[in-house]
Amino acid sequence: MSGSLRILPLGGLGEIGKNMMVVEYDGRIVIVDTGLMFPTAEMLGIDLVLPDFDYLRGRVGDIEAIVLTHGHEDHVGALPYVIREIGAPPAIYGGRLTIGMVRSKLEEHKLRDMPLRDLEPGMPVEAGKFGIELVHMSHSIPDACAVALTTPLGTILVTGDYKFDQTPVDGRPADFARLARLGDEGLLCLCGDSTNADRPGVAMSEASVGPALLETFSRCDGRIIVTCFASNVHRVQQVVDAAEVLGRKVALVGRSMRKNFNIASNLGIASAPEGLLIQPREIEDYPDEEVIAISTGSQGEPLSALRRMAHGEHRDVELHSGDTVVFSATPVPGNERSVNETVDRIFEIGARVITAADAPIHASGHGYQEDMKLMLNLTRPRYVMPVHGDFKRIRLHALLAESVGVEPERIFRTRNGVPLEIGADGARLGEDVGAGMIFVDGLELGEPDDAALRDRKTLSADGLVIVVATVSLEDLEVAADPEITFRGVPMQSGEDSDRLIDELADVVEDKLEDVLQGHAREPALIRQEIHDAVATFVYKRLKRRPMVLPVVIEV
Amino acid sequence: MSGSLRILPLGGLGEIGKNMMVVEYDGRIVIVDTGLMFPTAEMLGIDLVLPDFDYLRGRVGDIEAIVLTHGHEDHVGALPYVIREIGAPPAIYGGRLTIGMVRSKLEEHKLRDMPLRDLEPGMPVEAGKFGIELVHMSHSIPDACAVALTTPLGTILVTGDYKFDQTPVDGRPADFARLARLGDEGLLCLCGDSTNADRPGVAMSEASVGPALLETFSRCDGRIIVTCFASNVHRVQQVVDAAEVLGRKVALVGRSMRKNFNIASNLGIASAPEGLLIQPREIEDYPDEEVIAISTGSQGEPLSALRRMAHGEHRDVELHSGDTVVFSATPVPGNERSVNETVDRIFEIGARVITAADAPIHASGHGYQEDMKLMLNLTRPRYVMPVHGDFKRIRLHALLAESVGVEPERIFRTRNGVPLEIGADGARLGEDVGAGMIFVDGLELGEPDDAALRDRKTLSADGLVIVVATVSLEDLEVAADPEITFRGVPMQSGEDSDRLIDELADVVEDKLEDVLQGHAREPALIRQEIHDAVATFVYKRLKRRPMVLPVVIEV
Repeated sequence: MSGSLRILPLGGLGEIGKNMMVVEYDGRIVIVDTGLMFPTAEMLGIDLVLPDFDYLRGRVGDIEAIVLTHGHEDHVGALPYVIREIGAPPAIYGGRLTIGMVRSKLEEHKLRDMPLRDLEPGMPVEAGKFGIELVHMSHSIPDACAVALTTPLGTILVTGDYKFDQTPVDGRPADFARLARLGDEGLLCLCGDSTNADRPGVAMSEASVGPALLETFSRCDGRIIVTCFASNVHRVQQVVDAAEVLGRKVALVGRSMRKNFNIASNLGIASAPEGLLIQPREIEDYPDEEVIAISTGSQGEPLSALRRMAHGEHRDVELHSGDTVVFSATPVPGNERSVNETVDRIFEIGARVITAADAPIHASGHGYQEDMKLMLNLTRPRYVMPVHGDFKRIRLHALLAESVGVEPERIFRTRNGVPLEIGADGARLGEDVGAGMIFVDGLELGEPDDAALRDRKTLSADGLVIVVATVSLEDLEVAADPEITFRGVPMQSGEDSDRLIDELADVVEDKLEDVLQGHAREPALIRQEIHDAVATFVYKRLKRRPMVLPVVIEV
Repeated sequence: MSGSLRILPLGGLGEIGKNMMVVEYDGRIVIVDTGLMFPTAEMLGIDLVLPDFDYLRGRVGDIEAIVLTHGHEDHVGALPYVIREIGAPPAIYGGRLTIGMVRSKLEEHKLRDMPLRDLEPGMPVEAGKFGIELVHMSHSIPDACAVALTTPLGTILVTGDYKFDQTPVDGRPADFARLARLGDEGLLCLCGDSTNADRPGVAMSEASVGPALLETFSRCDGRIIVTCFASNVHRVQQVVDAAEVLGRKVALVGRSMRKNFNIASNLGIASAPEGLLIQPREIEDYPDEEVIAISTGSQGEPLSALRRMAHGEHRDVELHSGDTVVFSATPVPGNERSVNETVDRIFEIGARVITAADAPIHASGHGYQEDMKLMLNLTRPRYVMPVHGDFKRIRLHALLAESVGVEPERIFRTRNGVPLEIGADGARLGEDVGAGMIFVDGLELGEPDDAALRDRKTLSADGLVIVVATVSLEDLEVAADPEITFRGVPMQSGEDSDRLIDELADVVEDKLEDVLQGHAREPALIRQEIHDAVATFVYKRLKRRPMVLPVVIEV
């Protein structure tokens, strides 16, 4: 009962502890999840956003294990980067499907022979002073688990993403009994999912979606294209089951749709009767009323199969009137516009669209307020640390904890980079370790205020002007006419723009002569003077502030 | 009863006929509305999006009048550009508030002495062979009107944005009688608003918002900040009225909030009791429980007053816990992320947020399905042309028209640039006049596939490399080391990047010697060769495709 415990939440894009939780006891570390986020439109050219795991740099020797709650990108996607930047831990634990998906991901990153370990829920393992146990939960991907981390100070439960589904598709509800026993044993701290803290009631069961899909499909005369998350294997299974009932063939369209279904099939989590599945290129061989395509693209992602179909650019599927496109998913916040655009393209083609607003064909994977209260009442934690949400949802989750009787002083609302510190004498928020985000920019990792991104922002807003000045520093004179190039700067074409460039050349030449007559030989100074003269002139004439890049060539 | 009629819908960003309708009879033109749209995040650095009014170029002499239905930007904002590019028409008609707002807008654009004319609803004027009459309607801005255009072939009704509010705040409901008489007289064509064609039932009355706001405010102990559209004068008035009841002072925060209230007050459309209004800078002089601020920023707009407050950057208002921020508006599609971000910043500060999801404190300005059916049944048009919506809503509006008995062959679903043509012998869709969008890019108007924007997209995604090669074309040799500059390209700093630049310089020098030994003297050819060599090398090393700009200096 000595030592001290830190629980450090990390995450990108404002969701607290969404992507990574670092649990540290007396200097030894277990990491729960290593996920990533996708960039917003303002993050120009950025490929991925990682949680800032700088805290772990140089500490690979202190890490006992990484534990993965489930296979979604926002919980596992940063693993290759963590391994590359920090090093591989002695063990990486997760459920079977999770480990199956992660193995395939690591191979794509050419990371082989990593210590991946299937861990059966309810079967604890030791990792230094930690006990690690997965607790089976329900979510929108099979094999989602909470993680119980036992330390000499007590046990912490990190819920991962979860809901309480009383009638899950695979017949295996969350392990209520184990959660209750954790409560009986005296849970030290609950780090609970807050995603749906603003929704009253109980989350819909995934099993309720199947009959609604069947009902929806049965009223379609023509071809059916269903889109959902490729990792939502139980959803895909329910579409497959409905297709079987209706005597339709099923084509899995989109790389990740096929890949996830294969992994799940190999693990016995998904299955299709012999002869039901057809290849995407075979779709056009069957009458419209005998096919269901299950496609990626429920979020309107730019290169996804459905978006290509909507733009008439898919190799295998050409949408036409009579088709029905069923969105068995809702837009993740921020994707509304691209989803709307995809839907409207489909309307333009003349196909029908059915969304979750028209029929109960989607269920969230995250518990609502009553699920969250049930979790609190089952586990009766001494301390509560709401995670997975923005400030609003963290606050609402805290209020829910108060509503079931947790004293406010035992509830800790924190932010990414601010750890909860628990000792024998109580708990408190610790010092900010300064966690921001890491941007993956091509092959490089960088900070959000990275010079490359900053430059791209300037370039994207106003374009650039390049001025090449050729000078003889020996004779202190201009050796050739300045070369001026505009890119991305709005200008009238033709004479007006030629005249502008001529005038600008005069400005540059005058400035150069000026500077050289002052006997300046320092290229940096010459560049600065040209820069300022050009920027001033361009703003006066075009009311724009493009990036000005002066190049001085000495001959 | 001869001649022919064209009704040409124009608009930006996929909403059909949203911003501009060109009505042409025997070569003479009346334009209904001249609005604009705001750019999406992908339109890098674009300031505004205008409907493509190229059809009108060179035809200013054919234009009889511009008629404005109401003062929202998406219906009047393009007027300065239309006047500048096409020319001023003989008359610009609109209701009093509309003309008041437009006068102030034109003055900002230094367009004075324009033929602006208040037109009283129900009082028709002649414009060549057209009769023009405004019909009073309800919307989320006072003084919204439909436009009845009478031609020798019959009358067209362009509804503008509308709903049927049975209990409007100003006591003046839509002119049901006039709409019914238009039906009695035999309406030729209805061009009707489709915005809420996906919502069943009847739109909420604006008057229902006031009591809900009062109820919400009365439960607030601290300071109240309400945000809504500045042009929603009746909403602002209802906040002012509630403040008076509660004995709170009112501060109007944000330039457009003050401007619109002033214009409306001068026209007798809005009013506040003596002494109720205070200046934003006086807010901190009053106890929190005695103030209501009404602020711009309900859409999370970057420079708006509320967004500044949420980021702790507003000069006059510093948000703190105890404050309540009331969103009396819903996000316009596409603004969800910026609104969510603003809300979450406010939660982070610790202030309370109340939105239309928590209380009925917002009413849409657009009619729902029952309003649209009522419009159809009142006016009983021969032809129906749904406008103001994407393909989805246009289709749903068409289905509503069918549901009230309009034969499908009298309903015309069109798109921007495709006119409805009506002659004595019937109606049909005409040839596409090819209307896209016009982008306002700084001081220039351009096409969406404009080279400047295309360049900015490349620059924003991958940055650029500038290579300056100095050659002597007389001696056919390299005259100086190549100068290489990267901007916006993700690279490791320090040695690695220095080495990369050295290697790239070698690549360029080798290529130059190669080309010059082949006796190439054509700078364009030399540039092309350098470009290709650099692009290939950079992609191989960095997996990026930056813009490559080679500059060849001859000495």
